Amino acid sequence: MTPEEFRKFGHEVVDWIADYSANIRDFPVLPAVEPGDLIAKLPADAPEEGESMEAILADFRRLIPPHMTHWNHPRFFAYFANSSTGPGILGEMLSAAMNANGMLWRSAPAVSELEEVTLDWLRQWLGLPEKLFGIIHDTASTATFHALVAARERAGGDHGDLTCYASEHAHSSVEKAALAAGIARENIRRVEADHDFRMRADRLEASIQADLTAGLRPFCVTACIGTTGMASVDPVPDITKIAVQHGLWLHVDAAYAGSAAIVSSMRHVLEGVEQADSFVVNPHKWMLAPMDLSVLYTRHPEAFRQAFSLIPEILRTPYDDAVNNRMDYGVPLGRRFRALKLWFIMRYYGRQRLAGILEGHMRMAAEFAEMVKRDERFELCAPVLFSLVCFRYQGTDDDNSRILEQVNGSGWFLSHTRIGGRKVLRLAIGNRATTIEDVRGAWDAIRRASAFELT
Amino acid sequence: MTPEEFRKFGHEVVDWIADYSANIRDFPVLPAVEPGDLIAKLPADAPEEGESMEAILADFRRLIPPHMTHWNHPRFFAYFANSSTGPGILGEMLSAAMNANGMLWRSAPAVSELEEVTLDWLRQWLGLPEKLFGIIHDTASTATFHALVAARERAGGDHGDLTCYASEHAHSSVEKAALAAGIARENIRRVEADHDFRMRADRLEASIQADLTAGLRPFCVTACIGTTGMASVDPVPDITKIAVQHGLWLHVDAAYAGSAAIVSSMRHVLEGVEQADSFVVNPHKWMLAPMDLSVLYTRHPEAFRQAFSLIPEILRTPYDDAVNNRMDYGVPLGRRFRALKLWFIMRYYGRQRLAGILEGHMRMAAEFAEMVKRDERFELCAPVLFSLVCFRYQGTDDDNSRILEQVNGSGWFLSHTRIGGRKVLRLAIGNRATTIEDVRGAWDAIRRASAFELT
Repeated sequence: MTPEEFRKFGHEVVDWIADYSANIRDFPVLPAVEPGDLIAKLPADAPEEGESMEAILADFRRLIPPHMTHWNHPRFFAYFANSSTGPGILGEMLSAAMNANGMLWRSAPAVSELEEVTLDWLRQWLGLPEKLFGIIHDTASTATFHALVAARERAGGDHGDLTCYASEHAHSSVEKAALAAGIARENIRRVEADHDFRMRADRLEASIQADLTAGLRPFCVTACIGTTGMASVDPVPDITKIAVQHGLWLHVDAAYAGSAAIVSSMRHVLEGVEQADSFVVNPHKWMLAPMDLSVLYTRHPEAFRQAFSLIPEILRTPYDDAVNNRMDYGVPLGRRFRALKLWFIMRYYGRQRLAGILEGHMRMAAEFAEMVKRDERFELCAPVLFSLVCFRYQGTDDDNSRILEQVNGSGWFLSHTRIGGRKVLRLAIGNRATTIEDVRGAWDAIRRASAFELT
Repeated sequence: MTPEEFRKFGHEVVDWIADYSANIRDFPVLPAVEPGDLIAKLPADAPEEGESMEAILADFRRLIPPHMTHWNHPRFFAYFANSSTGPGILGEMLSAAMNANGMLWRSAPAVSELEEVTLDWLRQWLGLPEKLFGIIHDTASTATFHALVAARERAGGDHGDLTCYASEHAHSSVEKAALAAGIARENIRRVEADHDFRMRADRLEASIQADLTAGLRPFCVTACIGTTGMASVDPVPDITKIAVQHGLWLHVDAAYAGSAAIVSSMRHVLEGVEQADSFVVNPHKWMLAPMDLSVLYTRHPEAFRQAFSLIPEILRTPYDDAVNNRMDYGVPLGRRFRALKLWFIMRYYGRQRLAGILEGHMRMAAEFAEMVKRDERFELCAPVLFSLVCFRYQGTDDDNSRILEQVNGSGWFLSHTRIGGRKVLRLAIGNRATTIEDVRGAWDAIRRASAFELT
């Protein structure tokens, strides 16, 4: 494709994106499609001859958005809602065009150094201490996996007797990371939480003691700041004491809620994190960055190098002693230029404006929670600390499933979890364009969907 | 950022990309910078207030390209040279704008189904059998890691006695994957290669036998189609026989050279791959896709589900029995819409045109090899099977280092490796815009740099 062709189609695509953003409410957030619908519309045979970009983009417009769940839709309230925003998209455009691979400093100096600067800026925004080493991963799952491998290598010896710990409400990625790292399934402990869904430090201590007595080797505990189900916050300072006492690696998963610390009045949510051995927060969750961008901070970069550094001759450069070659800190050798979008976003919004956006999300969540509380047919199921509300209709699980499917079929997208064995609905606010009318509309839809009781 | 603002800056960025592509030869492929140069030009303090996008883009233009190694430069001959092309960049733009997360079918049906279709198309292009399950990873390192974990789980039991095998010329990512998967460092075997740098099947067999005798448990062998140093090809059919006989998982790393099978006359390079348990090829290496896009194929998707599937309540959907939720096959939960750029590239070029581009790269490599052969001061150091030429000046390692640094300082970028203990230079052709004049120019520069002998 010549530069002039790219110019033509690039402008066309930019216009499509601008129109898509402006008119996204015309799409249902969840498409009314069944598995296989898109496959049935695509040729089974691979293309032998080339086609015009006009035809390809026409097919994109005709086929992809109607089969897409629109994550950037302001009525997307499922999982942890997020946003792709203009500065982030511009950053991804330039990153794709330059196609730099930041495996080594020399292979892309700007990738290494902009990552270092932006992650230090983010550290400042989060109120974390100096001298933290930061590195960008694709997702928190991958970041947590790397933390567990570093912890495993620090523990040394055979892995068969290593045990690790996380709250019963920790994200499944913590367990998956442990399994991938080769920790035995039966040595992965889920620690009981209290009534506010916070890991109980006494139960953690008891579990460690029991394992020690059994001759096992506790090596890592993961604390959560913003659990996936209900965004609860584990007591990091208490857990830190136990981790220090027993020589455990403390990893903190703050993938979603860590961003809240950008808001001055919310800095307390990261209390104790400065003592953690590693810590993950995802700008692609609640900092307006497009997927993917997860940040791992650690006080022990050498533990990661120890676990992951293997330098073949082909990757040796004259600068190796003077720089951090980022390939030395993890599995992937190839590394996209993700810091560029973070740079654009941090500068375009600045801390104050970004903090204001997060505060807005939290205010809307608080208002939604109030609406739930005022309707006695519903109940709140967890404290609302951030921009996530867990609630349920006070009926059967089937009632709640029915409500969820009806609401999701009528222009909203909420998700669910189970708390105390019962089905619970989740409304997560994280989209830049979500307004209080969207939130009120969701509540109206939920009440309409629950009207079966009234008839 | 409003849609109208995005439209304005998006057009500006598209024009920059078009100009960058048109004028990329104005940049040195390697920037004349030292570690810390960019950091010194950036504020140490995080931005408190927002800035205009004009100012940010001006800083981008002023600061980033001058500190960048230009991977998309036609004179980039290092590592495995690759290309970001127009259709791929357009795909990344749309992917960033929609920001879909393909963790579940329901969370983004188009992401799941387009991945299924494009990977089946790619399978056809590569001449591979039906009923292979394909999944997109970021890099071959990650794909190989996942294959080793699936193999490890199939082997079961304690991991302390598991042993795995790869050629002495296998990519460092194979060893790194094994270490990350918890295989003991002393149980990772590098098998001796023959004079053409192909893993010796007899040595593999002997190594397995020795390990069995020692009471260890061989579980996995990785064969390479296109080793990183010299792009040699392991004898996959012979290795397959041994793997089958001993019940080892056979993983094939064809990250770079696998794409060659798109050329009809080169299909033989994948001979035997249909028997492998897993196989990785990187469209971001030699299929014109921007980073990142690595494809893992397997005959045993259930082995990956077994290793990686953990489904928390929040991710259950009514479709789980009818679909492949792609989060179930690996560590990362979040998954970008990477199939979109692959769809664009495969359709825009078609197999024939893409094959023609790869043939052009191989012809240029053959011509370069001829030039090396005709100059008796130089020698070829490995057979030229694809688009990589390994050669050396017949002097000391220091002579070769001096030549490399001088060439790399004068508008080209080559890399090096060690073969048989000696420093060897590598010229890798993979950029869409590279011409034979670029290749001849590199040779002239190399000869000029070696003129110290003539004075």
